[in-house]
Amino acid sequence: MRLLRLSPSLPLGFLLLFLSSVSAVLARAEEEDPTIRTMEEFSGYPLRESPSWVADSLSSLSVESENLQKQIDELASFSDTPAPSVTRVLYTDKDVMARRYVKNSMGLAGLSVREDAVGNIFGRWDGLEPELPAVATGSHMDAIPYSGKYDGVVGVLGAMEAIKVLRRSGFKPKRSLEIIVFTSEEPTRFGISCLGSRLMAGSKALLKELETTVDSQNTSFLDAAKYAGYAQDPVDLTSVFLKKGAYAGFVELHIEQGPILEEEGVSIGIVTAIAAPASIKVDFEGSGGHAGAVLMPYRNDAGLAAAELALAVEKHVLQSGSIDTVGTVGILQLHPGAINSIPSKSHLEIDTRDIDEERRNVVMEKIHQSAIRIARDRGVKLAEFKIVNQDPPALSDESVIRAMESASKDLKLSHKLMISRAYHDSLFMARVSPMGMIFIPCYKGYSHKPEEHSSIQDITNGVKVLALTLAKLSLK
Amino acid sequence: MRLLRLSPSLPLGFLLLFLSSVSAVLARAEEEDPTIRTMEEFSGYPLRESPSWVADSLSSLSVESENLQKQIDELASFSDTPAPSVTRVLYTDKDVMARRYVKNSMGLAGLSVREDAVGNIFGRWDGLEPELPAVATGSHMDAIPYSGKYDGVVGVLGAMEAIKVLRRSGFKPKRSLEIIVFTSEEPTRFGISCLGSRLMAGSKALLKELETTVDSQNTSFLDAAKYAGYAQDPVDLTSVFLKKGAYAGFVELHIEQGPILEEEGVSIGIVTAIAAPASIKVDFEGSGGHAGAVLMPYRNDAGLAAAELALAVEKHVLQSGSIDTVGTVGILQLHPGAINSIPSKSHLEIDTRDIDEERRNVVMEKIHQSAIRIARDRGVKLAEFKIVNQDPPALSDESVIRAMESASKDLKLSHKLMISRAYHDSLFMARVSPMGMIFIPCYKGYSHKPEEHSSIQDITNGVKVLALTLAKLSLK
Repeated sequence: MRLLRLSPSLPLGFLLLFLSSVSAVLARAEEEDPTIRTMEEFSGYPLRESPSWVADSLSSLSVESENLQKQIDELASFSDTPAPSVTRVLYTDKDVMARRYVKNSMGLAGLSVREDAVGNIFGRWDGLEPELPAVATGSHMDAIPYSGKYDGVVGVLGAMEAIKVLRRSGFKPKRSLEIIVFTSEEPTRFGISCLGSRLMAGSKALLKELETTVDSQNTSFLDAAKYAGYAQDPVDLTSVFLKKGAYAGFVELHIEQGPILEEEGVSIGIVTAIAAPASIKVDFEGSGGHAGAVLMPYRNDAGLAAAELALAVEKHVLQSGSIDTVGTVGILQLHPGAINSIPSKSHLEIDTRDIDEERRNVVMEKIHQSAIRIARDRGVKLAEFKIVNQDPPALSDESVIRAMESASKDLKLSHKLMISRAYHDSLFMARVSPMGMIFIPCYKGYSHKPEEHSSIQDITNGVKVLALTLAKLSLK
Repeated sequence: MRLLRLSPSLPLGFLLLFLSSVSAVLARAEEEDPTIRTMEEFSGYPLRESPSWVADSLSSLSVESENLQKQIDELASFSDTPAPSVTRVLYTDKDVMARRYVKNSMGLAGLSVREDAVGNIFGRWDGLEPELPAVATGSHMDAIPYSGKYDGVVGVLGAMEAIKVLRRSGFKPKRSLEIIVFTSEEPTRFGISCLGSRLMAGSKALLKELETTVDSQNTSFLDAAKYAGYAQDPVDLTSVFLKKGAYAGFVELHIEQGPILEEEGVSIGIVTAIAAPASIKVDFEGSGGHAGAVLMPYRNDAGLAAAELALAVEKHVLQSGSIDTVGTVGILQLHPGAINSIPSKSHLEIDTRDIDEERRNVVMEKIHQSAIRIARDRGVKLAEFKIVNQDPPALSDESVIRAMESASKDLKLSHKLMISRAYHDSLFMARVSPMGMIFIPCYKGYSHKPEEHSSIQDITNGVKVLALTLAKLSLK
């Protein structure tokens, strides 16, 4: 097994310097912002008397890269479609098998494992002061149909490796470190993105919605959860809610899902904000009929209404004038879906995002107006125009940004501040915890398709930065 | 059981007159067209010495309407979707059950039943001169997803009732009468319309295609046929081919699938021609990617290419300037089909028809040019543009038209000559037999949806006209 050493060139003295510089940085932060206490004040932990194991062992931090790649490949095998594609949908057999794999790995890594009522998985490494709010990291491992094996997974298995890196080094955290595997970041099955983290962040709207949510096969969310071993009766889903301040910090490691880091040859992206996502479901209904017998003037084709709206989404997004506005029709379904039958129903799901919330909302309103106009012009019924979610953007916490930056610097890894155009569970964790994200490059920015790829060197870099960031935050 | 008498007001004398008038009409036809021989010349059958049973019993012809409706309802229960919708797809369990039901009914009606290698079902009533080419009738009973219970079925169960009407009357056919239930008139499963009749008509192109055809689940046609009990090894599908002249005539009873008869209050439509159908499969391929991370200028969205082509189909059809040109995109599928993934593939199936073959071909060429242009403009690949079928129109045979017209007149049923905009197995039977079709009104012209309906009175009228037409043709 090839070991990529964390920093073979870092002398022991540098690491001692690094740890004292952490306190120096935090002390400066204290001067700048009185709400940030020094480590000593915050925890009563005498950092200046930094235990000798920290200094001794950080010099030998090492990432077991080959083993990590092997785990990524193994996890990818729990898929409903053939390799290299991955399809792992919430609460399906493959999802349950993947969960078992990860919980088993957590156990082997010496973490204490628990799950909440919707299947968010927590693996905890108790710190020296376990009563303090923990520092958390994690991501998701569900995969949309025919996608790749790195999205989310790097932040789950990479977090596990980061913990193992710290353990092997002899490091002992002050605050407990916790890995979270979030349930259903992807909206594939129930149309709800970041289901697990959204609920952890205390969304009462989601709580209510989950009572009646069904998938395309008319299986209820609760039945599906039960099938996977969760939400057994009687269940109170408010038990999933986290209190604000439950964690002292949350850091998510993730592939960029965009081309910037690769194109610029930068190793680490430090995320300062996550773009504001929204999604909409639209249903049109017409009369349908026989494709040969119903003449054109007598038609009200729900499929053509859908086609027109899809093109209108593109038009409104381009009209925003900003490169940062995006909109996508990823789902467009026709009923009955036979070549010789005029579509009597159509269903679209629209995703739109922007770093500017107001500008995104303008696009959503234009899409709504277009749907109304198209329905009127074509004599079809706009049976549904439902805003499924319309989330604000999230800002990373200054303290977490500083920890990620200094970790990158310590490791001599090139890095840049950037925004995340994709949403992540971090968007919702930001509501209950100081949040930050570490991006690594991925091949051509590809994601959500089988060609998605990050090199093991880039993943290893990300794991190193994550490990050091967690170490820094755990000592605060 | 309520019996709707065929013609309670028709005196016995009328029927004798009718039969002699048949010969008179045919004699006139003989004068008009030397290729039409008189009944006597054609069959050596002395019609002027019409057997007494014909005259005696036609007066008591009666349709068992309630039983017929009951059978229609029973057959509708073999469906993969809940009532009132019907979904019965080729070679599925429900299709096999429906076939068993119909073969059983044929047996009970005293017909000798056989099936060919692809499951076309034949129920034969031997005539007095069984060595002569028979007169056939029939239709299909497969049903596209979420459709209705009358399309095709009226021409199968109605044919059975027409035979029973003739049997009960004491009528004995000279030529044998045969009911044909065609395999897969609908293209639902393998994308091939009129599979059974197209093959009976001797399509060598289809023969070749069937060797490699698979459905959307990648099940081959031959495996699916075997599953249903057909095409067992070793199979020679040329055994399905009919020789030209195999039948002396073919008549199909069918619901109109258009609104004309109902709107005009006419009981019977006598089809003079069937519009020329064509179908096209199109696949676009783009790069796909993450709906948040890939900015608009870097996209080549296969879904938007499909939406644009769907609207182009509508535009080109309307540009033809004729009410008779129709075009439909009944299937539009996106891959991977997730809200947060840019479609990397799209698949469309396009149906276009016209009574004017040349005009329809112009529309097809314009659709092709649009597909090429859209692919170029959007930077997607036009991975497939396949003309699945491009059939010429079919003309009904003058002799069959005359038989249907005189049957309608004899029964004092209002009738009109019309074209069929929908295609039917008759389109292909016309290649091997003189062909004609009898239309009956259906509610609002609805077809291919659960609301499809024909009143039992209209169906009964159709059965009467069919029975008399078959009687007339059988004596030729």
